[in-house]
Amino acid sequence: MSRSPNPSDPSALDRRELLKLGALGVGAAAVGGLSGCTPTDEGATPGASAAGPGPVPGASAADAPSAAPPASIAAQAPSAPFRAPPMEVVRVGFVGVGLQGGGHVRNFMGIEGVEITALCDIDVPRMEEVASWVEDDGRPRPTLYGEGETDFVRMCETEDLDLVFTATPWRWHVPVCVAAMENGKHAATEVPAAYTIDDCWRLVEVAEAQRKHCVMMENCNYDRPEMMVFNIVKQGLLGDLLHAECGYLHDLRAIKFSDANEGLWRRDHSRERNGNLYPTHGLGPIANCMDINRGDQFSYLVSMSSPSRGLQDFAQENFPEGDPKRSEQFALGDVNASLIKTALGRTIYVVHDTNLPRPYSRIHMLQGSRGLFQGYPNRLHIAGRSPDHQWESYADVLAEFDHPLWRDLEEMSAGAGHGGMDFIEDYRLVKCLREGLPTDMNVYDAAALSAVGPLSEWSVANGSRPAAFPDFTRGRWQSYPAWEVVRA
Amino acid sequence: MSRSPNPSDPSALDRRELLKLGALGVGAAAVGGLSGCTPTDEGATPGASAAGPGPVPGASAADAPSAAPPASIAAQAPSAPFRAPPMEVVRVGFVGVGLQGGGHVRNFMGIEGVEITALCDIDVPRMEEVASWVEDDGRPRPTLYGEGETDFVRMCETEDLDLVFTATPWRWHVPVCVAAMENGKHAATEVPAAYTIDDCWRLVEVAEAQRKHCVMMENCNYDRPEMMVFNIVKQGLLGDLLHAECGYLHDLRAIKFSDANEGLWRRDHSRERNGNLYPTHGLGPIANCMDINRGDQFSYLVSMSSPSRGLQDFAQENFPEGDPKRSEQFALGDVNASLIKTALGRTIYVVHDTNLPRPYSRIHMLQGSRGLFQGYPNRLHIAGRSPDHQWESYADVLAEFDHPLWRDLEEMSAGAGHGGMDFIEDYRLVKCLREGLPTDMNVYDAAALSAVGPLSEWSVANGSRPAAFPDFTRGRWQSYPAWEVVRA
Repeated sequence: MSRSPNPSDPSALDRRELLKLGALGVGAAAVGGLSGCTPTDEGATPGASAAGPGPVPGASAADAPSAAPPASIAAQAPSAPFRAPPMEVVRVGFVGVGLQGGGHVRNFMGIEGVEITALCDIDVPRMEEVASWVEDDGRPRPTLYGEGETDFVRMCETEDLDLVFTATPWRWHVPVCVAAMENGKHAATEVPAAYTIDDCWRLVEVAEAQRKHCVMMENCNYDRPEMMVFNIVKQGLLGDLLHAECGYLHDLRAIKFSDANEGLWRRDHSRERNGNLYPTHGLGPIANCMDINRGDQFSYLVSMSSPSRGLQDFAQENFPEGDPKRSEQFALGDVNASLIKTALGRTIYVVHDTNLPRPYSRIHMLQGSRGLFQGYPNRLHIAGRSPDHQWESYADVLAEFDHPLWRDLEEMSAGAGHGGMDFIEDYRLVKCLREGLPTDMNVYDAAALSAVGPLSEWSVANGSRPAAFPDFTRGRWQSYPAWEVVRA
Repeated sequence: MSRSPNPSDPSALDRRELLKLGALGVGAAAVGGLSGCTPTDEGATPGASAAGPGPVPGASAADAPSAAPPASIAAQAPSAPFRAPPMEVVRVGFVGVGLQGGGHVRNFMGIEGVEITALCDIDVPRMEEVASWVEDDGRPRPTLYGEGETDFVRMCETEDLDLVFTATPWRWHVPVCVAAMENGKHAATEVPAAYTIDDCWRLVEVAEAQRKHCVMMENCNYDRPEMMVFNIVKQGLLGDLLHAECGYLHDLRAIKFSDANEGLWRRDHSRERNGNLYPTHGLGPIANCMDINRGDQFSYLVSMSSPSRGLQDFAQENFPEGDPKRSEQFALGDVNASLIKTALGRTIYVVHDTNLPRPYSRIHMLQGSRGLFQGYPNRLHIAGRSPDHQWESYADVLAEFDHPLWRDLEEMSAGAGHGGMDFIEDYRLVKCLREGLPTDMNVYDAAALSAVGPLSEWSVANGSRPAAFPDFTRGRWQSYPAWEVVRA
């Protein structure tokens, strides 16, 4: 049942079903998440500060999410990172062509060797609009699939495609990727790729069985400061990496309560889940620098969430008496703070805050034995180079350490989404597919980064107990080669 | 035995003794600290990232530090914050008059109603120098106590003093405070007040039994940005407080390896202990804003430490072949990251890094439902007042929100230690003693803030398991009045 093509959106799943999943030993993280939906109660857990020996009370260890791979999967991942045969032209079908999906279509129109073959969306007028962009670009009109929520299955079964790219609500990422791969297409998905441990394994298992790419499109991996830091790290200038701090701190209150776009579905997750719901923007670039799944890996995490005030307050202040939005209650603590320990003993602080009034930040701090970078505002300190106890400004070091990919693509990416990084990530995906290279990020990265969500939900619901990450590579993280500084 | 007047400095305590303490159910945190002295091994804990259900392996819950009060202590703290009878003149004896202690003597010389009656130090020439400052100020020469490490006991037994102020190596803070209180003197100590849970309880028990003040002198509570934030919080401008981030990030490598001052003893703690060794500079101001022990309290923490590289690397780079410093090994992970949950469900991130090359920071981030302050660099965002998604600079808001204490004392504090805040903290202590007021911070604050050290050591040594804080107030935290915005 947990393998049904339409995985449970928590808001669509009743508690009895979840407990059944729990009894089957799968999806336990989601159960933990739902059972821990009252941060203030949880904060006041009896005994947490009471007299008496022993650690903080919480659910028994037996409730911990299983780190074991499914019995059906191979004992190990492939011995080398997966490559597909090269292709001259990448024929793409897009599922979900709203704000972000439409942006990707525009990016692909600017990349050589791409055919935009099909589009799929439940919002047919929007799909028609995006199709017209393609035609106005002098390209054949893509075939449109708009017959309901699961019409992407028909698209995957019908069309000759090399790549299916999904930018749908989170609940559809896994079913679209699975339908694509099971019909012989590579898959690319917006973030997070999945939000249950079971679904993380599912992407890995299907990608391995079908021998297809399954790439989570973490655009922040390609932002200019992040790539500069990666370039600095690969030159060894920070020494041995030891610690990082990152997060997604973005006031999304108006977006969550909007009657359009993400407002139609994203708020559901805040209502039903309490944890680090959106970890990959901050954590992706850190994982690349730390060679996660390529020499190191996430070992375990602990997590806690603050009380939940922001969304309730926003509804009271912005909607009139009687508006049902005013009576919505949210499980999501306004600030989730998680700590990840890696196999090499490194520490990573990952924060999530999308409920409170604040300026935007991803924190972006990476520290090694010889120096550190700190974002927001960007600054750098390297022992022996920088004045002792003092920062150098980003502006002063960018020219020296700018990543070659940005030097190569700055002009082409100008005007693209999120300052150009979205174009660069799309460009790299197309290049790797056309040349038959391993993709920059692979299905193991999609699974490991996405797993932070459900593991943090479980830890929050269980008094911040440690939760172990599954080894999605089943040992290969020790031998897979590191990602290098690539060119366009 | 654990009540001996000379508490165990870990570097002076052998493992068998510690295990005995552990068997007695006391000092377990210290045991945990010592048993967890290999962060890289601990990071690679078997099973932490291996397949198989269940949480991260670690010591059994039975090893958790006891949160129970000692059987000998009263069931509850006093119903109201302790006040001593007022006094016209505060007669002070200083124990430890090195760099920081000497600074406090200078501050006291600038405060009305103070007599500097006695000095105690094992460094007699330095003590003579400080005594000469007092004489040069036209005051009677203080009596000097320099007959060995424990001569402070003779001072406390012999002298008519109202206050004993200690700025000694950490291992002496508790014995000096206890000797002072048991001889009828109030006690003030530099930070941290203690570094075992047992010693935290000891300060509380003796202060209550002797009806004396025992104040931890956390100077950062009085720094100008911290007091401005406290002023803003007390005006309700940040809404309900939800989350904070703080720490002590200070490159102390050269100081730890110095052949003078802190170099003579501080390195021992880095060699033997792995946790958040110096939490109070960052956490003190956050605790004041969150009314810790006055409406909220620390509930539990989880902690992890990065690998240890910084001190070993520094020794290799700075000392010649054959220098014994080159062969020292350090237990202390370079970065310790801890998360504290409060009884009201708030979350606090506390970092410690004194081993790596970096610019100084205490982070100083405090977030509520209506806005947040972020330090390093200082900036403020208040919903409705600040432009949406944008910061206001400290320079732009200081005049409006400056704490009255700073307005009152700016001139008097000019030139004093650490930008003047050391003078202000000393001024407030003397004022509270002279007027018979509760001190700004009390023995419960000293215990709760200091407890982060041993609890983090235990959590680090036990796979980041949660460790509960003792309720040093035994329930009174729910009724003690909040600290207010005080005047000079």
